[in-house]
Amino acid sequence: MNNIPKTMKAMVMFGINDIRMVTDKPVPTPKAGEVLVKVAACGLCGTDVKIITKGEAAMPGLPPFGSFTPGHEWTGTVAALGPGVTEFEIGDRVAVQAHSGCGRCENCMSGNYTSCLNYGRLDKGHRTTGMTDDGGFAEYAIHNVNAVYKLPDNVSLTDATYVTTLGCALWAVDTSGGYIAGDSCLVMGPGPIGLSAVQACRALGAEKVVLVGTREERLKIGREVGATHTINIRETEDVLGELMKITGGKGFERTYDCAGTESSFDVCMRATMKGQKMTIVSFYKDAIKADLNYAIRNGIQLHTVRGEGGNNCKRALSLMAQGKVTAKPIMTHIFPMEEFDKAYDYFVNRKDGAMKVIITP
Amino acid sequence: MNNIPKTMKAMVMFGINDIRMVTDKPVPTPKAGEVLVKVAACGLCGTDVKIITKGEAAMPGLPPFGSFTPGHEWTGTVAALGPGVTEFEIGDRVAVQAHSGCGRCENCMSGNYTSCLNYGRLDKGHRTTGMTDDGGFAEYAIHNVNAVYKLPDNVSLTDATYVTTLGCALWAVDTSGGYIAGDSCLVMGPGPIGLSAVQACRALGAEKVVLVGTREERLKIGREVGATHTINIRETEDVLGELMKITGGKGFERTYDCAGTESSFDVCMRATMKGQKMTIVSFYKDAIKADLNYAIRNGIQLHTVRGEGGNNCKRALSLMAQGKVTAKPIMTHIFPMEEFDKAYDYFVNRKDGAMKVIITP
Amino acid sequence: MNNIPKTMKAMVMFGINDIRMVTDKPVPTPKAGEVLVKVAACGLCGTDVKIITKGEAAMPGLPPFGSFTPGHEWTGTVAALGPGVTEFEIGDRVAVQAHSGCGRCENCMSGNYTSCLNYGRLDKGHRTTGMTDDGGFAEYAIHNVNAVYKLPDNVSLTDATYVTTLGCALWAVDTSGGYIAGDSCLVMGPGPIGLSAVQACRALGAEKVVLVGTREERLKIGREVGATHTINIRETEDVLGELMKITGGKGFERTYDCAGTESSFDVCMRATMKGQKMTIVSFYKDAIKADLNYAIRNGIQLHTVRGEGGNNCKRALSLMAQGKVTAKPIMTHIFPMEEFDKAYDYFVNRKDGAMKVIITP
Amino acid sequence: MNNIPKTMKAMVMFGINDIRMVTDKPVPTPKAGEVLVKVAACGLCGTDVKIITKGEAAMPGLPPFGSFTPGHEWTGTVAALGPGVTEFEIGDRVAVQAHSGCGRCENCMSGNYTSCLNYGRLDKGHRTTGMTDDGGFAEYAIHNVNAVYKLPDNVSLTDATYVTTLGCALWAVDTSGGYIAGDSCLVMGPGPIGLSAVQACRALGAEKVVLVGTREERLKIGREVGATHTINIRETEDVLGELMKITGGKGFERTYDCAGTESSFDVCMRATMKGQKMTIVSFYKDAIKADLNYAIRNGIQLHTVRGEGGNNCKRALSLMAQGKVTAKPIMTHIFPMEEFDKAYDYFVNRKDGAMKVIITP
Repeated sequence: MNNIPKTMKAMVMFGINDIRMVTDKPVPTPKAGEVLVKVAACGLCGTDVKIITKGEAAMPGLPPFGSFTPGHEWTGTVAALGPGVTEFEIGDRVAVQAHSGCGRCENCMSGNYTSCLNYGRLDKGHRTTGMTDDGGFAEYAIHNVNAVYKLPDNVSLTDATYVTTLGCALWAVDTSGGYIAGDSCLVMGPGPIGLSAVQACRALGAEKVVLVGTREERLKIGREVGATHTINIRETEDVLGELMKITGGKGFERTYDCAGTESSFDVCMRATMKGQKMTIVSFYKDAIKADLNYAIRNGIQLHTVRGEGGNNCKRALSLMAQGKVTAKPIMTHIFPMEEFDKAYDYFVNRKDGAMKVIITP
Repeated sequence: MNNIPKTMKAMVMFGINDIRMVTDKPVPTPKAGEVLVKVAACGLCGTDVKIITKGEAAMPGLPPFGSFTPGHEWTGTVAALGPGVTEFEIGDRVAVQAHSGCGRCENCMSGNYTSCLNYGRLDKGHRTTGMTDDGGFAEYAIHNVNAVYKLPDNVSLTDATYVTTLGCALWAVDTSGGYIAGDSCLVMGPGPIGLSAVQACRALGAEKVVLVGTREERLKIGREVGATHTINIRETEDVLGELMKITGGKGFERTYDCAGTESSFDVCMRATMKGQKMTIVSFYKDAIKADLNYAIRNGIQLHTVRGEGGNNCKRALSLMAQGKVTAKPIMTHIFPMEEFDKAYDYFVNRKDGAMKVIITP
Repeated sequence: MNNIPKTMKAMVMFGINDIRMVTDKPVPTPKAGEVLVKVAACGLCGTDVKIITKGEAAMPGLPPFGSFTPGHEWTGTVAALGPGVTEFEIGDRVAVQAHSGCGRCENCMSGNYTSCLNYGRLDKGHRTTGMTDDGGFAEYAIHNVNAVYKLPDNVSLTDATYVTTLGCALWAVDTSGGYIAGDSCLVMGPGPIGLSAVQACRALGAEKVVLVGTREERLKIGREVGATHTINIRETEDVLGELMKITGGKGFERTYDCAGTESSFDVCMRATMKGQKMTIVSFYKDAIKADLNYAIRNGIQLHTVRGEGGNNCKRALSLMAQGKVTAKPIMTHIFPMEEFDKAYDYFVNRKDGAMKVIITP
Repeated sequence: MNNIPKTMKAMVMFGINDIRMVTDKPVPTPKAGEVLVKVAACGLCGTDVKIITKGEAAMPGLPPFGSFTPGHEWTGTVAALGPGVTEFEIGDRVAVQAHSGCGRCENCMSGNYTSCLNYGRLDKGHRTTGMTDDGGFAEYAIHNVNAVYKLPDNVSLTDATYVTTLGCALWAVDTSGGYIAGDSCLVMGPGPIGLSAVQACRALGAEKVVLVGTREERLKIGREVGATHTINIRETEDVLGELMKITGGKGFERTYDCAGTESSFDVCMRATMKGQKMTIVSFYKDAIKADLNYAIRNGIQLHTVRGEGGNNCKRALSLMAQGKVTAKPIMTHIFPMEEFDKAYDYFVNRKDGAMKVIITP
């Protein structure tokens, strides 16, 4: 632990909508099975906005105001290792996935660690960085060893903040049967997750990947990263009709709702090929009116994904290193921690076409 | 084709809510790959009621009024074999499953024959008896050879009409991962499907099988056929609370909504263990208000089943022959075809505790 | 830690074929995530024989002679809890599974904990009791919390030593697709695993369960615990022919080689239905001559199982509590630790029909 | 059926090692569910060599000498449609997969059509072109509609003969869990199947794809089509050691034995990562000595593939159309039917670097 300071800069939540930079937060010490990382970059995510604006109402198990540091999309270099950690060396460039399961509940024992039954229980070994424990809007952060991934040489520390977003999209594909070579895929919603789903589908060999949204500038990015077709809802009278036409009336083998509205759900479901699979990769504002009879009559299975899982961050990094997926068009802005407020404003209000906004400490 | 008459008795739909017995319907001749069966018994199902009361609005592809005979839960003895059929011998006691896929579309080629893309296309080889072609409320009926199952010696022709109902419940278990030994299962709705789901879960080794409903007499049957707990909604203030208590707060590894109401959906979803699976085995009256965020946040997968599938009728017959599932308490009434109206009245209005009502020709 | 002595009786290996009872072995202290159990009973298993007769050659990572205590099929009552363990209370009746994964390697993260990549690394969190760490031929033993199972009230501490054996058989069924209702299953070899496989198949709804072996007294037990057919190799000229006859020439949907000989492999493979699955649940003496072309030409998949896994010990206990599986005919002898040599002799030499032999401390 | 001649040129087997071109073979007439294709090209495959040199001994169910035409890797344009076939139009460019299941046996009903229980039974609807019925070394050939695939515009009729070879490699990936993004894959044997497996793995996002073989010119092609590493057995002392080094000692998540020797089996198995999957995609000359204990101890599952399946020919065509897989370096020679003997000689004796040799009628 040479050269590691006792205190550090970090963003700290002092209350709802009250997050400020401090300069004297103690640097944590890694315990058994933990890794301390000198943070290089941390992405802002919609979940951070929910945490900042709603606190524990949005995220049960949030640590107390006055000390809690959010941020779960972080990367950096290994600074210190807890007892028993031999998987990494000091100086290794790494990224993390948000969730680390307890390893002892029934779900973790069957590989379903993002559904850990000990969610929020640090004492049982569970940790979701930046949600149930301090995160990466800081100079240093710790995480469980099984949530830390070594970066391939050709993936930069900045780009690697993308690993959770892409890991989430890959988990969506994985959950609904990851073998989609030659299939047609529909992605509703061209946000960071939707654009990642487009890339994931293409990287795995999907033939047609159709992206549906309302903002032309984002659909354009969609085409750049691999969408074979885009549909702008605002310019299309019969979206479902168009979708069916693209698939010769058959519908899509896999559909992904990354838009999170009552109508995106409905279109997504009805565009799913009979007997096939739809995955929800977003939250809805509220309960929605859903014509589930359509799914039942047509044997459509509805999968859900709340974040990355299934070790897909490993896969995400590999696809980035292979050049099959790119973080570039999605990483639109970088700000130093001192300008967190400005970064937050850009992200929330999508200023200057902001999509993913990165904070450096 | 000795001893087979040219014409026969059969129920024929002449219009919505207009089904009548005729005595001069031509007996069909089995073509290549088809089997002609002398019908012994045919169960009345909720789907028949929809067909009789709504016609093609409920069942697209319904054959024309004036000749169409419904009925898809039928059994009998093999009377004649179409060309190339060597799987059966004249006189074999058999039951059928409703659906037979075309065998040539993508879904059939991958084993998903109840989602056949050629649904309703007799010319392509698809047939759903009593729905897209004549069914079993008749003295004779034909079906594709792959939808016909030889009866074990100790399963009666009457009991075997249960094979589609039980096959549907088994398909629900199968679809959501058929290995449930030691798991806790929740069944919402003690109708024929729900009671079959209870039996299926128990036969496959589930530990706790909780049945929820509103009619005490049906819950009683539920306990008789294996439910370890029953909850009467009308007598219980906090159904969800009770369910969680039974599972020690953990929820059920598998849940089955066989009730088909907005509230049964909601309770079923919230009683599902984090990261686990809910299966819908009923239709809702309409679109429902669904808080899908709960499923997303908790990693709950939503499966749907519209009928039997996955060759589960074979499995159903075996479980009946093994004595692990019984049709008895569910088969409440038998009427001859001449009393079809009375039978229908008993079934629709649940007279005299009617559950499954059987018609004999 | 009241009432817990400082030292205890335990069997200790002092060398190959040199295992002796000591009376002054220190009682271990449970660390974070560990449970200390006052042992009630511990079964002798073929693996123990390998360990005792071959040492590290049979079990890489074996602790050093002079202190190592084998035994992995143990039960008892919880005596003390390590920090953070709230899953149990002092006095709880429990059984254990042998393997506990590290929870941090790729295999553990995907639920495949019996293939832990940190096998033998206590410092990483892995532990296989009685193999890579002290086991249950002692008055006290510790294990990781995720390998400890609370006993149902109606399962005795002696019977519960059966949980690993049965868990192994269930994992074999699970691995090859756990949904076997109505299927035909073949079990080669009527040892403890084979007899457990017979019971597992029956409990999960298999229709035909055929057991093949050489000792009539064991085949008899097989019939008592549910085998629908038994074949004595010594009295049967054409075993494969008999097997095909039983399945109407079709072969078995699932086959399990629990015998571990070149010829059991061959018969098992050839009796497997085209396109279906064979699972190996035993070790062979050496490399065997295998006509894999038969498997290739017939699309037969070969699964392997080296022990319990997939949380099947939970399922095993439930099936025992439900009365669907019984340990009774397999638990043939019980001896106090003082008579370990006699117990070992009975087990190894199958004296007095010995099958499972239990040691009590 | 305008413009279709009554007779045609075709290769006909008159006996073992006696295949000759005839000019007066009757052109077949498509029956219900069948498609008649004017053949453009047909690839020679190792299976053809077995048929030609061994006849029914290699392929039970072979049609009689004197009329039988082999060839199963054929493409062409649709010339006529049997009754009920509306899936194609006259003139459509198509390829076929060899196998078409009966659609009525248990395996076909569950999607496992390459393990059809009615193999060889044309009367039950099964057909394997060029094996159990006439094939594509002819001017015209017929096949079942479900085995015919429409070609993407940018895939040539010659290249499309590759669809079965590639479909077989994809089925190997699919069978062992088709989601391999970021995984390491090992391919033993750089023949047509092995080189296809290399391409399939890369197209699906595998990170490391290691090809092992003995001929430098084929390993070179391997690198051209995507192998990240190649190992020449003849120049490497410790092949297994090299393989483990490449994977950091961990082994490969997926391994494919496309070489079919006792030692390729052994290396492939030992290079498989603990708890992961090996697939055999070749035949062995004979029974082999196999140390299955290694697989058992390490939880390695052994999958087998005998040909294309799982509708992977659809996927193969899509990957070719997407430019992610190329037939070019594998299609080395084309000969007219008149030079069949020369073509056969080139193929069998690998003359002039022959890999895939195509016959045009």
